Amino acid sequence: MTSRIETDSLGNIPVPANAYWGAHTARALENFTISGIPISRHPHLVRSLAMIKNAAAQANCELGVLSPRQAAAIRESCREIQEGHHLEQFCVDVIQGGAGTSTNMNANEVIANLGLEKLGQRLGDYQHLHPIDHVNRCQSTNDAYPTAIKLALIFAIAELNQELGKLAETARNKGAEFADVVKMGRTQLQDAVPMTLGQEFNAFAATLEEDRSRLLESTDLMRECSLGATAIGTGITAEPGYQQLVLRALSEVSGVDVLPANDLVEATSDVGVFMHVSGMLKRTAIKLSKISSDLRLLSSGPQNGFGEITLPPRQAGSSIMPGKVNPVIPETMNQIAFAVAGADTAVTMAADNGQLQLNAFEPVIAHVLLQAVSWLKQGARVLRTHCMEGIEANTDRLARQTAASVGLATALVPAIGYAAAAAVAKEALRDGSPVLDVVTGKNLLDRATAQSMLESAALPVRGTRISAV
Amino acid sequence: MTSRIETDSLGNIPVPANAYWGAHTARALENFTISGIPISRHPHLVRSLAMIKNAAAQANCELGVLSPRQAAAIRESCREIQEGHHLEQFCVDVIQGGAGTSTNMNANEVIANLGLEKLGQRLGDYQHLHPIDHVNRCQSTNDAYPTAIKLALIFAIAELNQELGKLAETARNKGAEFADVVKMGRTQLQDAVPMTLGQEFNAFAATLEEDRSRLLESTDLMRECSLGATAIGTGITAEPGYQQLVLRALSEVSGVDVLPANDLVEATSDVGVFMHVSGMLKRTAIKLSKISSDLRLLSSGPQNGFGEITLPPRQAGSSIMPGKVNPVIPETMNQIAFAVAGADTAVTMAADNGQLQLNAFEPVIAHVLLQAVSWLKQGARVLRTHCMEGIEANTDRLARQTAASVGLATALVPAIGYAAAAAVAKEALRDGSPVLDVVTGKNLLDRATAQSMLESAALPVRGTRISAV
Amino acid sequence: MTSRIETDSLGNIPVPANAYWGAHTARALENFTISGIPISRHPHLVRSLAMIKNAAAQANCELGVLSPRQAAAIRESCREIQEGHHLEQFCVDVIQGGAGTSTNMNANEVIANLGLEKLGQRLGDYQHLHPIDHVNRCQSTNDAYPTAIKLALIFAIAELNQELGKLAETARNKGAEFADVVKMGRTQLQDAVPMTLGQEFNAFAATLEEDRSRLLESTDLMRECSLGATAIGTGITAEPGYQQLVLRALSEVSGVDVLPANDLVEATSDVGVFMHVSGMLKRTAIKLSKISSDLRLLSSGPQNGFGEITLPPRQAGSSIMPGKVNPVIPETMNQIAFAVAGADTAVTMAADNGQLQLNAFEPVIAHVLLQAVSWLKQGARVLRTHCMEGIEANTDRLARQTAASVGLATALVPAIGYAAAAAVAKEALRDGSPVLDVVTGKNLLDRATAQSMLESAALPVRGTRISAV
Amino acid sequence: MTSRIETDSLGNIPVPANAYWGAHTARALENFTISGIPISRHPHLVRSLAMIKNAAAQANCELGVLSPRQAAAIRESCREIQEGHHLEQFCVDVIQGGAGTSTNMNANEVIANLGLEKLGQRLGDYQHLHPIDHVNRCQSTNDAYPTAIKLALIFAIAELNQELGKLAETARNKGAEFADVVKMGRTQLQDAVPMTLGQEFNAFAATLEEDRSRLLESTDLMRECSLGATAIGTGITAEPGYQQLVLRALSEVSGVDVLPANDLVEATSDVGVFMHVSGMLKRTAIKLSKISSDLRLLSSGPQNGFGEITLPPRQAGSSIMPGKVNPVIPETMNQIAFAVAGADTAVTMAADNGQLQLNAFEPVIAHVLLQAVSWLKQGARVLRTHCMEGIEANTDRLARQTAASVGLATALVPAIGYAAAAAVAKEALRDGSPVLDVVTGKNLLDRATAQSMLESAALPVRGTRISAV
Repeated sequence: MTSRIETDSLGNIPVPANAYWGAHTARALENFTISGIPISRHPHLVRSLAMIKNAAAQANCELGVLSPRQAAAIRESCREIQEGHHLEQFCVDVIQGGAGTSTNMNANEVIANLGLEKLGQRLGDYQHLHPIDHVNRCQSTNDAYPTAIKLALIFAIAELNQELGKLAETARNKGAEFADVVKMGRTQLQDAVPMTLGQEFNAFAATLEEDRSRLLESTDLMRECSLGATAIGTGITAEPGYQQLVLRALSEVSGVDVLPANDLVEATSDVGVFMHVSGMLKRTAIKLSKISSDLRLLSSGPQNGFGEITLPPRQAGSSIMPGKVNPVIPETMNQIAFAVAGADTAVTMAADNGQLQLNAFEPVIAHVLLQAVSWLKQGARVLRTHCMEGIEANTDRLARQTAASVGLATALVPAIGYAAAAAVAKEALRDGSPVLDVVTGKNLLDRATAQSMLESAALPVRGTRISAV
Repeated sequence: MTSRIETDSLGNIPVPANAYWGAHTARALENFTISGIPISRHPHLVRSLAMIKNAAAQANCELGVLSPRQAAAIRESCREIQEGHHLEQFCVDVIQGGAGTSTNMNANEVIANLGLEKLGQRLGDYQHLHPIDHVNRCQSTNDAYPTAIKLALIFAIAELNQELGKLAETARNKGAEFADVVKMGRTQLQDAVPMTLGQEFNAFAATLEEDRSRLLESTDLMRECSLGATAIGTGITAEPGYQQLVLRALSEVSGVDVLPANDLVEATSDVGVFMHVSGMLKRTAIKLSKISSDLRLLSSGPQNGFGEITLPPRQAGSSIMPGKVNPVIPETMNQIAFAVAGADTAVTMAADNGQLQLNAFEPVIAHVLLQAVSWLKQGARVLRTHCMEGIEANTDRLARQTAASVGLATALVPAIGYAAAAAVAKEALRDGSPVLDVVTGKNLLDRATAQSMLESAALPVRGTRISAV
Repeated sequence: MTSRIETDSLGNIPVPANAYWGAHTARALENFTISGIPISRHPHLVRSLAMIKNAAAQANCELGVLSPRQAAAIRESCREIQEGHHLEQFCVDVIQGGAGTSTNMNANEVIANLGLEKLGQRLGDYQHLHPIDHVNRCQSTNDAYPTAIKLALIFAIAELNQELGKLAETARNKGAEFADVVKMGRTQLQDAVPMTLGQEFNAFAATLEEDRSRLLESTDLMRECSLGATAIGTGITAEPGYQQLVLRALSEVSGVDVLPANDLVEATSDVGVFMHVSGMLKRTAIKLSKISSDLRLLSSGPQNGFGEITLPPRQAGSSIMPGKVNPVIPETMNQIAFAVAGADTAVTMAADNGQLQLNAFEPVIAHVLLQAVSWLKQGARVLRTHCMEGIEANTDRLARQTAASVGLATALVPAIGYAAAAAVAKEALRDGSPVLDVVTGKNLLDRATAQSMLESAALPVRGTRISAV
Repeated sequence: MTSRIETDSLGNIPVPANAYWGAHTARALENFTISGIPISRHPHLVRSLAMIKNAAAQANCELGVLSPRQAAAIRESCREIQEGHHLEQFCVDVIQGGAGTSTNMNANEVIANLGLEKLGQRLGDYQHLHPIDHVNRCQSTNDAYPTAIKLALIFAIAELNQELGKLAETARNKGAEFADVVKMGRTQLQDAVPMTLGQEFNAFAATLEEDRSRLLESTDLMRECSLGATAIGTGITAEPGYQQLVLRALSEVSGVDVLPANDLVEATSDVGVFMHVSGMLKRTAIKLSKISSDLRLLSSGPQNGFGEITLPPRQAGSSIMPGKVNPVIPETMNQIAFAVAGADTAVTMAADNGQLQLNAFEPVIAHVLLQAVSWLKQGARVLRTHCMEGIEANTDRLARQTAASVGLATALVPAIGYAAAAAVAKEALRDGSPVLDVVTGKNLLDRATAQSMLESAALPVRGTRISAV
């Protein structure tokens, strides 16, 4: 592979002749050989960086610090990247020191060289279009990079939210399908009182729908950004008027209504919003994990478990036990949740290690959060299409169990008091007798009253009634 | 100590003759000998439980399922507890199995026996006023207990928010005091560009003020409660109309505008809001930790550190090194933050272990969150009164350092470009020469222009100007 | 309350006239009003500090830097504290800045004043016996305090290990009791292949026994201590020969064979051993949590769950559902485990925040670890006495389930191959037919061979045989 | 792409005609579209699985349940994989449900088809060599997969340990290089007492060397494996004598002396050893993070920081601040540590969610641990080659600072007592006077004695002496 020589403050360094990236990226490739995962694995981040450079070029052109020709070259290059081209040029490692400078410079260099090509110049001939003096004009890594992370998270979480919505909708549909399936609810894994399987699935839907709102609130907070703060929030090297122009341009380019931070010094060093969104993602993950654990419990068996529902079989469950089918899809979601909780730990420690005017550890924050969103999105999709949609209720078994449950005795409490009802339940369980027989046998209630109370207990939703008590 | 005998479904059990608590509490005292920390260590929790019992009694009276006399006895007892009396009667361990049943029964029993006394009856003579059939009427631990935790957190966080507000105000005052103190900002612990010490303290204020808003949003979410859901969300044993009445009564009694949950089945098992508030507390804690670490860095020395500020001495720093004074107050806050992050781990695991219609692990959630809020509140107060208020700036040293800094070269970038400015900075640092001399010596700028650019760089806020560049 | 005036480098401060603690403690009481939990809540820590002061006095006497009379007064005071007296004098908050200086000075002051009393002097008259110049002689907080934490953990974990041993023994006894109770094992909550309930309880025993060994290894590492390192590991102010003498004395006084650290500078700042023990405690906690979750699963029901075992009832389970009995003891242990995992997070963050020659955050490490050990010990005891000892097996149900299980088809794989066995299992499950009938009906095996293979499968341990396949 | 049709218990499924993997892998590719990271990213895991299949084939051949021809085909295929061939065939997602069954079946299928080729048969023609009946013979995922994870971790950690050793050696070399560089030690970021920079780097070496021992102990524990346990630890379908043969064969094949687990039922469900190694990796990570933070502190500046050492410049530090050089390599290591702490959270939650006879969440454990080891290894290498090796000491500055430090007053304590020494230090600091002058000016010591004590204090190691006090 032929190479060209580029120069930075450390001296000369060879760069592959046809690479759009340059010296700073080359140094980063040497320095950060950690994960082998390039930043191109986070396309939303790359795309968001391009939007910022695009908006900055527009603002700088309006301010007269970039010529229209330079600005056009930059903006056209950015648009190509925004559309998904040149992703392979974003090659620095996701784990990198330097607070994102290598990622920012990777973008600056690729955009500069793409622009040079458009201007009819050779790659690396930066006097015509310079990665720092032109593409990065009025910017610092310290404002451009965290803004890119925020935009990327906004885009990624929008996709996640869509998947959560579909999953909730599927659960809601199952709730309707199972509206008449009466079963015993359980608290602390012990039989409690009757409910419907529909209520159980509606609760899955409700809990996810609530998180969609919370996630939107989180992304809403991320619209506030520090563009114009440059190095530490004092706006050094930014032209007067730049902040307003770049935010307006970025809103247009991104479709996200970005807002200026109140205190640019604070905004430059603070990563509170990443902790916020990390906490929210963990909450969503744990909800999905809890739903998955419930599905595994409810489908346990097939013979010696709860056996209330059947999950669609997805693969042979065992390399040794023939015929075994395992709840592999919910298990996947559980594991995603554990990884997302791990991401929150990493974010917390990164946040705690921020010092003075900057948090140097944003790259690991960006990586673990974007990965978490992506995994959650994929997990939610798989949970819906490969599991939730195909769940079936074991209706007969559930009706039988409910009718025979001593948990119905709870319905008698208002009439006979807690202590007497406890004695009835204990006896019914010991003898295997119906609660109705025991309570009337003890002359605590007449049969008609007792039957009516028990029936209404076993009728957890209006319009539903089980056949026999 | 004489005792009376009480009875529950497991049989007889002795209770100290003058204890207001009864059999269920006695069992819990036997069962949960874990932490030695009684729930009375969380007075907001006790008070909130009393409010709920108070409101329930009022609702049950309106519904006619409690007599006015019974309701009055219950409500008067609750009022006493709300005012802080009888706290020592709340004696079950904060770490307890049973999803809070022991805490709820501890409250039911204390209120019943206090009420019995008011009714002129003997302690334990529950036919006149029964812990379950009357005090707990239309309730389950599963709706009363989590509602009490939410109220308790609302009250506790209001106090924390007040302390955060005072701390932010103090930082803001310091920001004004230090408005003219120019210094070098630092990114990645390396000298960056000029700012004022006032901006640094204003950023502390801003970041805390932002969290006050976020915490309020969290507590706002906690107003939604599941009262009326009873055991699993189906409202079994609750009278028709009870939910509306009890929420109205609780709003009056507590001063908090409580709202009904949308889906009572979901609301019964979900602990998402506790994850939300835990995440928020962790975020606040980490911000306080970051501020504390910054204060320790900025005051490092006294001779061989950053030495930018001096913290008020609070105690002799060492048992061996005479004259040493350590930043003990910020160090305290760091440690509180680590403990709060630990609390979030515990909450996460507890949430993940929820099963089916209930999360049985709310007691540990309640304990670690209420402890976290309390420690943060105390920490914020101590950080303000014992540290922030007395911080002094080492103004002369800062001015000297800023004037001599090669970081000023950044200001030249718009004029001479990044590469040339880098060469200037490098040379200035190597030779210990002023940036001004180097840039003019290289004929990159005329002296007047250079001086003007450097001065404006060292003038990070309007109206401030350092003496010499 | 009358007071005496003491003086430290910050000036005069009043101290209650009869307090054994002095000025440094008084400052700490003012500074650290965080948790309200005094260090006396960790008696092992107080006792260990006394041992160290005792040993140091002996060494210093031998070196001639303390008079025999002074040393005797110190040592006698220490012995009283070691025996559990004066605990209430150890009153500084467990959450404190200053890397343990306040705790160390609390001890120095109490010992000095106790000694003064023995010498016939007034409290506070430190010229005769000085907290720093005599009691703390040749020591720094930075070597004495972490050594005390290590000793305290060694003592505390010895108690925990004893409880784990008893719990393991009880599980082993249950293993013997249930040696003939055949049941279906489960993987991924799906029925797998036969085993005995005895094997399940023996596995509980085995997994705990393994952790006893691991915990011992952890405490073994903690015998290495930095006494003699003084402030930063260079031994400044320590007399030549002191290190050897004090370690020998401490070994005698404590009964623990303490060893010198290889590199005293490293040992002074490193908290790796606390991370090690924290990780081990978390591992043990998670094992206890997993066992508890298994017990809750196996006892789920009583009608609609796994119903394999019955836990001893410990209290009425519900304030609303009569007759309900919940697994409150295992639930307690789960929650302890979540708290211990939280402690590990706090330790991790504290460790990560260590800087240069010291980790200033040892107080929070000490608190959360000692609390974790204590809670685990109490939890293990409660799990044994209130749950494990009284567990009963539902033998008939288990035998019936095993005989009817399609999981037995696994036994046929070596003979007919995985694919054919899978078809057999599927058909047996669908039709509710015995595996034996299906496999012979398909002419895959003759009845005698099939019966023999199935029987041996259902015979998971030598000497056990289920009645019918 | 042409395809062949394979069949499993769910029916037919197309497989690319030339793929060595088969139906089970195809299902897994459909089911687990989560991370996009194939298990081939963990080559040690793939290699270890091949070793196990190799050993099993040898054992099964000796037992006569595989023909020599079949066994030879399997073993030759395994050897190729062990040597790094066919890695791209290991394509299932690292995040997968099913407790590793998909990974195990991916291996079984690739080995079977490689073997079929060697036997002159068509891919997928499993009657001649079957993935389950032959390659997986006497095995279950539940014993083969965790054993493979353990072997993989043993191999990976051996590499990590080698890198840690080199890093420690480099630090040790720096320790020797800086043996005469006297400086002030710092506790709690405040100047303490003298030491040498050599001692500081030796402490880095010592702390890493200690972890090498601890990591070896961890990997030693992982030699214990559950091969022969098959599905749940009862050894169902394994031939008598198999366990002994396969362990002997695996020891030969792998070069690791593998041992049988004591209790196979316990060993099948327990993941304690993964928690152990995770805790150890976190400890090592935090140590590396602490060292990195120290390097960043010590090199802070260049003008307004500690400025004790200079790190080798690795890249231009900023896209805005010319000439700025940042400590990007230590920052990388900090971030790796945060990610490793996150991995430990994921492992903890996965461990806690184990149920009954299996932990279904081993795939996420395997992924995060193997990734953690790999990142740590790369980080340690980069920290050595790109940072530690090139560190230079700012010797003159350090000598000047030490000579002027009031911290030297500590040396006077044995002679004049703590209180008097504190007064001396205070005055020296206030007036900027040498400690020697102050102490003699106060007539506390004669000049010769004082000078001798101060000199010996500033002589932290034998043979070193600073020029002037």
